[in-house]
Amino acid sequence: MKVDLNCDMGEGFGPWPMGDDDAMLDIVSSANIACGYHAGDPSIMFRTSEIAKRKGVAIGAHPGFNDLAGFGRRVIRGDSPAEIERMVAYQIGALQAVASLAGHRVTYVKAHGSLNNMANEDEDLALAIARAIKGVDKSLINVCMPGLLMEKASDKLGVPVVREFFADRTYEDNGALTSRKKPGSVLHDAAEAAERVLRALQDKAVTTTSGRRIPVQIDTICVHGDEPSAVEMARTVRAKLEANGFTVAPFGNL
Amino acid sequence: MKVDLNCDMGEGFGPWPMGDDDAMLDIVSSANIACGYHAGDPSIMFRTSEIAKRKGVAIGAHPGFNDLAGFGRRVIRGDSPAEIERMVAYQIGALQAVASLAGHRVTYVKAHGSLNNMANEDEDLALAIARAIKGVDKSLINVCMPGLLMEKASDKLGVPVVREFFADRTYEDNGALTSRKKPGSVLHDAAEAAERVLRALQDKAVTTTSGRRIPVQIDTICVHGDEPSAVEMARTVRAKLEANGFTVAPFGNL
Amino acid sequence: MKVDLNCDMGEGFGPWPMGDDDAMLDIVSSANIACGYHAGDPSIMFRTSEIAKRKGVAIGAHPGFNDLAGFGRRVIRGDSPAEIERMVAYQIGALQAVASLAGHRVTYVKAHGSLNNMANEDEDLALAIARAIKGVDKSLINVCMPGLLMEKASDKLGVPVVREFFADRTYEDNGALTSRKKPGSVLHDAAEAAERVLRALQDKAVTTTSGRRIPVQIDTICVHGDEPSAVEMARTVRAKLEANGFTVAPFGNL
Amino acid sequence: MKVDLNCDMGEGFGPWPMGDDDAMLDIVSSANIACGYHAGDPSIMFRTSEIAKRKGVAIGAHPGFNDLAGFGRRVIRGDSPAEIERMVAYQIGALQAVASLAGHRVTYVKAHGSLNNMANEDEDLALAIARAIKGVDKSLINVCMPGLLMEKASDKLGVPVVREFFADRTYEDNGALTSRKKPGSVLHDAAEAAERVLRALQDKAVTTTSGRRIPVQIDTICVHGDEPSAVEMARTVRAKLEANGFTVAPFGNL
Repeated sequence: MKVDLNCDMGEGFGPWPMGDDDAMLDIVSSANIACGYHAGDPSIMFRTSEIAKRKGVAIGAHPGFNDLAGFGRRVIRGDSPAEIERMVAYQIGALQAVASLAGHRVTYVKAHGSLNNMANEDEDLALAIARAIKGVDKSLINVCMPGLLMEKASDKLGVPVVREFFADRTYEDNGALTSRKKPGSVLHDAAEAAERVLRALQDKAVTTTSGRRIPVQIDTICVHGDEPSAVEMARTVRAKLEANGFTVAPFGNL
Repeated sequence: MKVDLNCDMGEGFGPWPMGDDDAMLDIVSSANIACGYHAGDPSIMFRTSEIAKRKGVAIGAHPGFNDLAGFGRRVIRGDSPAEIERMVAYQIGALQAVASLAGHRVTYVKAHGSLNNMANEDEDLALAIARAIKGVDKSLINVCMPGLLMEKASDKLGVPVVREFFADRTYEDNGALTSRKKPGSVLHDAAEAAERVLRALQDKAVTTTSGRRIPVQIDTICVHGDEPSAVEMARTVRAKLEANGFTVAPFGNL
Repeated sequence: MKVDLNCDMGEGFGPWPMGDDDAMLDIVSSANIACGYHAGDPSIMFRTSEIAKRKGVAIGAHPGFNDLAGFGRRVIRGDSPAEIERMVAYQIGALQAVASLAGHRVTYVKAHGSLNNMANEDEDLALAIARAIKGVDKSLINVCMPGLLMEKASDKLGVPVVREFFADRTYEDNGALTSRKKPGSVLHDAAEAAERVLRALQDKAVTTTSGRRIPVQIDTICVHGDEPSAVEMARTVRAKLEANGFTVAPFGNL
Repeated sequence: MKVDLNCDMGEGFGPWPMGDDDAMLDIVSSANIACGYHAGDPSIMFRTSEIAKRKGVAIGAHPGFNDLAGFGRRVIRGDSPAEIERMVAYQIGALQAVASLAGHRVTYVKAHGSLNNMANEDEDLALAIARAIKGVDKSLINVCMPGLLMEKASDKLGVPVVREFFADRTYEDNGALTSRKKPGSVLHDAAEAAERVLRALQDKAVTTTSGRRIPVQIDTICVHGDEPSAVEMARTVRAKLEANGFTVAPFGNL
């Protein structure tokens, strides 16, 4: 039994660090690297790629809106799907090149923040992102929430996907995450999150806030990197999985 | 007898256009495409790549400082060579990916503005740029001013180079361009510029402002894209070259 | 009979110009100056303020979202009203200071693009903008579309308002502009636009696309600056107004 | 005996914090607030102004180059003095407006990073900054290093100045700071720094690395905010001063 742990990384910018990437890179098997649009810069991208390479951690492009001030979490409407496609390709290519300086290789893509959310509510946007991924490199894997539009768009275009489960978030009946604004939507207790992850993997299902059970094949677990407790939660999730017979390893070939 | 004509392109940003790229792409054989740092954005990069592809024009990455406000012409000191290396790789990769959406392929690199000027005065910087090019793709050609540090650094690292001559600029005895601030350093007369280009190609030498003759093998002629008279000058240079037995074609394989 | 003509100006950025501000400043009586967030930079702001001062044209701050790439026309959601308030104040203050170098004084504010549109659909946002204006300088006038939320919020907080009519746009029954996406929503014929402006001023009413008549007191006419035909339309509107007994002059005291 | 303690603050950006401003605002009497060009944004500027107001701390504009990626520490050449003047005015005005929302008032200016360093090596630049300050508000005080070009330019134009001493830096015989690149140029021991501050104030002189004594009237002590030990050093300096009969208070009127 194999499962991947992924985490957003390289989300500092210029003089400003964010998160404890060094610690996280000892725990996770896949690093979603910001590409300079919502966070990150060439030097941070390089450094993250280099450490990931040394530690056997897979790297993926984590493209977002060009919105440093809003960290890619603001909803930005007005770009056409074609513009989104080019913006996503730009970021993937930028990371591929920087990673190659570090001797590493980008094997997957995971859209960031509101770009990801919006794609799961707008098929044209989801298709645009899938086209960008396929256009840049047919072997790139798209990390998707199971059952939502991004996965469907990827399937339609033949873009390989893996399905992820969020360790610290609750789910609605439509398979989407509960809004961060609702109380209880973000788990802060590491043990509880780890227990939920294990159950989802063993049951091959996500249990929603209403108690509904959505059957899913989960390939990767997302642990967040930007909260103070992130490292501890990631460590707890990994320990729980290993204690229950799972091997933590990248979903793709390095 | 074959020679290439190159021109800076895609130097608009967001709502702001610059230059008449459509007209220029009917004249030149190589388009140096801005990569979003000193100018350009993913949609402009795509559009320029797409038209270039259709018209059989080669494309190159034209990386510059991250300085939209200064159009990459300001001198910016404080980044280490390693930071410059990653910044250049970032821009090359971004264009490679966007170009691939347009079915085109980046075959060369030409550093922009003060990044290019500074590299020709600082070997560590020139080596950093050459390492970036080589690290991203060994087959990429670096467009250099003959005899200056960028060419030497490229040779040292085994990065293929072509040598360029500026149609509308005068030269100093060290092979560098006369500063734009000196009167007469920028030619505005298309016929005069075309005549100088032809002479340099036929003589295999550049004549400097002091009258000195520097022997050089010229592979490509740079015609500028951001002045009002740019299209006419490019057309005149091309006509002159063709009338004298030269074929205008990309220096690399498309 | 006095009326003001206002126009968006100073909407270049760095090396990129936009519109023919010099010509426009001979025609209009109020210049809405971009403040560096959606367009403009300190030097452009200064130059526009200086020419306006010399020509007796009033100046207003034209704050927008921090979105050069989208020219402030993209809808950006995620900032709280308090954040919007500070962002608007920032831009007003920046222009006040730069204008003071040019010996001119900011007498009004007009929100730009999607910030303006969104404020007219969200009272909290409209109140935030009104608070920013009042907080910076109680005498600043807010340029509003008559009958919409921005005017109401300004009234509520005691921020002085003037009401504007768009020369080249059609209106819906709710007093809002017809979406640019609908055919016919933007007038391109200068004579037709001028005729409509005159009728609205004389009737003291706007006629909507359905034929409905909305009574309004119009204080200022907006002529756009970023379309090629802008100068001609502005000139035609002004000539029409003067031929019919109107004096074109700033609404506030210079 | 009265002396001011000043510290750079509000140097986060968007999602990225920097330094422990809350703790610092309990120790210093003047807060140099970043204005969005090298760091800071309207919300951070507001928050810093508001807390400063509540704690009786004076606020000053801390304008820098438009260089978030380089934190205003990179040398950027290519702007004319007139462009620098407008850029500085822009930032001062922006803070004035945001501060007014917080009920506070900007009483001084202190140029940041390489803008400050460059002004002390280029009289035209120093005069440009002084003109900006005077043009925006004649009562604004310019915080200068004693004996250098910025102070002289301010004197020439009648801009009021105060003279500052850096608690944690060593000095050269020309009155400039020893380059950060030289070993020992930055003090890390709080007690040693405090002792040096006290000596300089009591001797009314700065002792340079060569042992030379430069007589100076010191009005304000700069303690840095962006190093981990910053709070402790500031606290130690303040305690030392108070234990020796100095009162820590803003140099201007609040």
